[in-house]
Amino acid sequence: MEAKSDVKTEKYAANISSIREAQVRINSFIHKTPVLSSEIINAMSGRRLFFKCECFQKGGAFKFRGACNAIFSLDDDQAAKGVVTHSSGNHAAALSLAAKLRGIPAYIVIPKNAPKCKVENVIRYGGQVIWSEASMQSRENTATKVLQETGAVLVHPYNDCRIISGQGTISLELLEQVPCIDTIIVPISGGGLISGVAVAAKSINPAIRVLAAEPKGANDASLSKAAGRIVTLPEVNTVADGLRAFLGDCTWPIVRDLVDDVITVEDGEIIEAMKLCYEILKVSVEPSGAIGLAAVLSNSFKQNPTWLDCKGIGIIISGGNVDLEVLWESLRR
Amino acid sequence: MEAKSDVKTEKYAANISSIREAQVRINSFIHKTPVLSSEIINAMSGRRLFFKCECFQKGGAFKFRGACNAIFSLDDDQAAKGVVTHSSGNHAAALSLAAKLRGIPAYIVIPKNAPKCKVENVIRYGGQVIWSEASMQSRENTATKVLQETGAVLVHPYNDCRIISGQGTISLELLEQVPCIDTIIVPISGGGLISGVAVAAKSINPAIRVLAAEPKGANDASLSKAAGRIVTLPEVNTVADGLRAFLGDCTWPIVRDLVDDVITVEDGEIIEAMKLCYEILKVSVEPSGAIGLAAVLSNSFKQNPTWLDCKGIGIIISGGNVDLEVLWESLRR
Repeated sequence: MEAKSDVKTEKYAANISSIREAQVRINSFIHKTPVLSSEIINAMSGRRLFFKCECFQKGGAFKFRGACNAIFSLDDDQAAKGVVTHSSGNHAAALSLAAKLRGIPAYIVIPKNAPKCKVENVIRYGGQVIWSEASMQSRENTATKVLQETGAVLVHPYNDCRIISGQGTISLELLEQVPCIDTIIVPISGGGLISGVAVAAKSINPAIRVLAAEPKGANDASLSKAAGRIVTLPEVNTVADGLRAFLGDCTWPIVRDLVDDVITVEDGEIIEAMKLCYEILKVSVEPSGAIGLAAVLSNSFKQNPTWLDCKGIGIIISGGNVDLEVLWESLRR
Repeated sequence: MEAKSDVKTEKYAANISSIREAQVRINSFIHKTPVLSSEIINAMSGRRLFFKCECFQKGGAFKFRGACNAIFSLDDDQAAKGVVTHSSGNHAAALSLAAKLRGIPAYIVIPKNAPKCKVENVIRYGGQVIWSEASMQSRENTATKVLQETGAVLVHPYNDCRIISGQGTISLELLEQVPCIDTIIVPISGGGLISGVAVAAKSINPAIRVLAAEPKGANDASLSKAAGRIVTLPEVNTVADGLRAFLGDCTWPIVRDLVDDVITVEDGEIIEAMKLCYEILKVSVEPSGAIGLAAVLSNSFKQNPTWLDCKGIGIIISGGNVDLEVLWESLRR
C-alpha cells in the first residue's frame, strides 16, 4: 500500500484539531487505558499485536470518550435541559455517566432487547430509562417524543462530530503508547469509533493502515465500501450486539476515504477470539470487542494482499460489557 | 497503627537490595503490569482501590517474576542441568517459561488435581511434566527423584530467597505507579508473594500497612500469626486452588514481623469478588486473584480496627488462570 502523504481531513466531521481539543476537554475524566500484549497470541498470528483495552474505560467501553466530549462541549443553557439518546447500551451508559459528571439529566431510549448488563450500567450511572421496541424506527420515534417533551439535546451514538472527535483520542493515546504500530484494526458498526481513529491516526502518520472488522451477518460497511455509497441491510444477524448499526452521513465519508479495507468474520470466529481474550489475555470482552482479534486470526485476512505488510497491529478492544450467562452460552457452543 | 520507622530487613530471606537487584535482572523479561481502578467498586467499598493486575503478567500470574529471578540468578554450570519444581500450576508455568527464555530444561512435578489450564500453560512453555499424586508428600518425593536423576536445581515455589525477591518487584512498580497507597492487600498461601511485597513496601515507606487475605478453609497463616509459630492444617478446603500451601521457614519470619494482619474470607465472598472482577473491572481472574477484593468488601475487614485508616488500598490481583468451565460452575452457584 502506498503511503497517503496528503491526508486532508478538513472536509470531514472531525479532524486532528477537533480530536486534540477533545483530548484536552475529556482528559481529566477518562481512563488512559493500558495496552496489553501476549507472546502466545503473537505466535498464533505471526504478528506483533497490541491490544488497546477500552473495556477498561469508564462504563466498560470506548463510548465514554465521545459522550464526555459531547456533554462538555455543550454551553450552559443547552446543557441545563439535559441530553437524550437511543442506544442498545454502551453509548447510553457512557452518556448517563458523562451527564452525571456535569450534573445534567440524561434521557435514554433503550430497545427492549438490549443486554441486561448494559441497561444496569445506564441505571447505575443515573440515566433515566425510556423503553422502546427493538426496531430503529421505534427507537427514533421514542427519542423524538422525549426531545419534544424535555427540550433536551440529542446526542447520536455515532453520527455526531463531537462523538467522532472523542473516539479519535484513542489513536492519540495508542500511537504514543506504541509508536511502532503500522496497522490499526477497529470494530465497525455506525462508524463513530473507526472514523475518529482513522482521522487521528492518518493525520499523525498517513502510512498507517486502518482496517475495519465487521461481522458477516451485519456486513453493511463492507457492502457500502464496495458500492461507493451507504448500503443498509433489511436485517442483521450477529452475536456482536454492538455492531448492528449502519453508517451515517458524518461517518460514511471518512469510512469511504480513510478506511483501507473491511475484514468480515464469522460469528464463530468472534466467539473463538473472545475465548482467547478470556483465557490468554485475561480480559473480559464483549463479542464486539473481540472482533479485531478475530479478524487478525481469520483466513480472510491472511489472504488479503495487505497482510504481509501488517507487522505491528493495534487492535482496539472496544468494550467488555457482557452478561455472564450470555457469555457462557456463547462460549460453550 | 503506629508507623514502624525502623524496618530492618537484613535478617530476612529478602531485603530491599535483593529486590532492587531482582528488578534489574528481570526487567527486560517481565510485563510492567497496569493498575486499574473502578469508581463503582470504590463506591461499594467506600475506599480508593488500586488493582495491580498481575493476571496480565506473562504466564498469567505474578509467579513469573520470582521464577525469572531464580533462573537468571543461576550460574551457567548450575543452569545447564536445568531446574525442577513441584507446583499446582502457576509457578510451574512461570518456571517453564523462564527456563525456556534461558534455554535450559524445566522438570515440573504436577499433582493430578491441578487445574487443566495451568497444566496447559506448563506444556505450552515447554516444561517437562512429571505427574504425582495430589498429596504434598507425593509431590516432594517425586521431585526428589527427579533431582537425583537429572542433577537439576530445585526452585521451590515460595520458600526461596530468589523467588521472594522477584515477587517483591511488584511493590516497587506499584508504589511508583500509585504513590498515595497506604495499604496493600495480598493473597497469602506459602507466603512468597506477601513476603516480597512487604519487605519492599515497608522498606520504601514503613507506614504502609501490609494485610494478608486468606480463605477461611485454608487459614493457616491466620492461625500461625496468632500462635507465633508456623501452624499447618490436616486438610484445606477452598475454591482458591492457589492458596492451599503453608508457610515456610524463609517466609514465616517476614509474615510474622511485617504483615500487619490477616483478613480471612469465605469462599462465597471470593466468588462474589470474582464476579465483580469480570463484570465491573473486566478482568479475568482466578479465585486466588480475587481474594484481595473479597477481603476489602468483607464484614470482617470493616470490623477491623485498621479499616478506618485504610484509605488508598493497593490490591494485588495475583493471577488469572482459570478453566472457563470451572469458572462458570463457581459463578452460577
